[in-house]
Amino acid sequence: MDVWETLGLAQKRCIILHHDDLGSSLSTNQAYLSLGFPTGSIMAPGAWAMQLRTGDLGVHLTLTSEWDLPRMRPLTAHPSLRDETGHLWQTLALAWAHVDATEAEAEMRAQIDAVYALGIDPTHLDTHMGAVLRPDLAAVYHRLALEYRLPCLLPTDLGELNMPVGYREALADVVADTPLPTVRMIDTYRSDVTDKVTWYVELLNALPAGVYHLLHHAAVDGPDTRVLPDAHIRIGDFEALQSPQVRHALSSFRVTTYREIRDAWRRLVSP
Amino acid sequence: MDVWETLGLAQKRCIILHHDDLGSSLSTNQAYLSLGFPTGSIMAPGAWAMQLRTGDLGVHLTLTSEWDLPRMRPLTAHPSLRDETGHLWQTLALAWAHVDATEAEAEMRAQIDAVYALGIDPTHLDTHMGAVLRPDLAAVYHRLALEYRLPCLLPTDLGELNMPVGYREALADVVADTPLPTVRMIDTYRSDVTDKVTWYVELLNALPAGVYHLLHHAAVDGPDTRVLPDAHIRIGDFEALQSPQVRHALSSFRVTTYREIRDAWRRLVSP
Repeated sequence: MDVWETLGLAQKRCIILHHDDLGSSLSTNQAYLSLGFPTGSIMAPGAWAMQLRTGDLGVHLTLTSEWDLPRMRPLTAHPSLRDETGHLWQTLALAWAHVDATEAEAEMRAQIDAVYALGIDPTHLDTHMGAVLRPDLAAVYHRLALEYRLPCLLPTDLGELNMPVGYREALADVVADTPLPTVRMIDTYRSDVTDKVTWYVELLNALPAGVYHLLHHAAVDGPDTRVLPDAHIRIGDFEALQSPQVRHALSSFRVTTYREIRDAWRRLVSP
Repeated sequence: MDVWETLGLAQKRCIILHHDDLGSSLSTNQAYLSLGFPTGSIMAPGAWAMQLRTGDLGVHLTLTSEWDLPRMRPLTAHPSLRDETGHLWQTLALAWAHVDATEAEAEMRAQIDAVYALGIDPTHLDTHMGAVLRPDLAAVYHRLALEYRLPCLLPTDLGELNMPVGYREALADVVADTPLPTVRMIDTYRSDVTDKVTWYVELLNALPAGVYHLLHHAAVDGPDTRVLPDAHIRIGDFEALQSPQVRHALSSFRVTTYREIRDAWRRLVSP
């Protein structure tokens, strides 16, 4: 019996609507509070991480700080985690070229512990920009998930993401062997979509039975969103997820949470 | 011959208009860019510290993170610098009760080095909320200023600030013995002023000859300012310092910068 059978979710259309980048800005947090969906994950190095304490909140493990502004620093002092300005690397390529796995493990632990220290009972782990997909980091990520007894985002399919040679295969090996529940990831981070309401509705309506981790980046429109190069994606997510059409499409799914999954999995592995 | 004589400022009405809390928020930085006055100081732990690179910029040494949101973490891992959430202490009283001077010195060095790492050539040191006024911390602050060859804000008079017994006297001793230039500090952080334009004008017009460090907390009106409990002070500073009346009152002063002071002082002590 697996987690999905335990929860009565097998063969159903189930969705985790996952809000990425919580704690990174006031406007991102405001979108979370306004939308009312429970699940998302907190960037511990974010200046606004303290705003959200309750909900189905995980740890958005962060090894990159991609915007010119605002920037985030690692919580630990390790040199391989930071660029010459002292902040986390600005691109995945730079992070993957420089990050030492031992130092990254210390940083990931510090970020998980920091989220507990905020007074949050985290329900899961995931990773900002997929930074932990470098195979040695993926192994650390998976090991930490087991140690903290937290589900981590383990997609069975990386979709269209561009990955260096070997990364996709290494993740597939982790997914094949893991005792943790795995999900089907839907990454809505698309800059080429103009009518996002229609795009979400068609996407959702076409999904067969399965458990989906649909990740979005909603932010309310405001100065701290407009300064971001991908503001239109974030504002577009917020507007689409508020729309009656998308809400209607979502209503045909069983919405599940990582808390439900975490607790069922913990009972399964140590009854 | 002292710095003021070297610069031809002795017996003149001179002012340093000092923008506190740069780097703490987008709206604070926007106010700095909009006002056009050169001098202010950067909070290295702030998420927006990277935005400002040029100008007469110092290091706003930060041992407190007073707002509920956003919060700042120390750059170093030392335990005495942080509360149970991992952020800098929320009040001066907590910081003064807990901070270890050796750990605070490491943090202050890290913040100064971090500002250099941002690509800024800092012109001076000052301190957020006066946190370094605890006598042992004031000694560290003064020693670091000498080591980095940077003027630091050393007010000859703390005005109406409430200070624990002994703090005022210890600062007076530092001021009496320092080889660094000292200034007359005017703290405009007043919550009880309703007509800030008139208040600034009357304050400025009444000042006799001297070198004044007039510190303000201007921020443009926006969501990240309105979330602060002292938003009205910050917005009030921004509006007053834009007004023709205050600009006119300022026009009777020689505006000086810490760069001018720093460079003159460095030439004096090692010609």
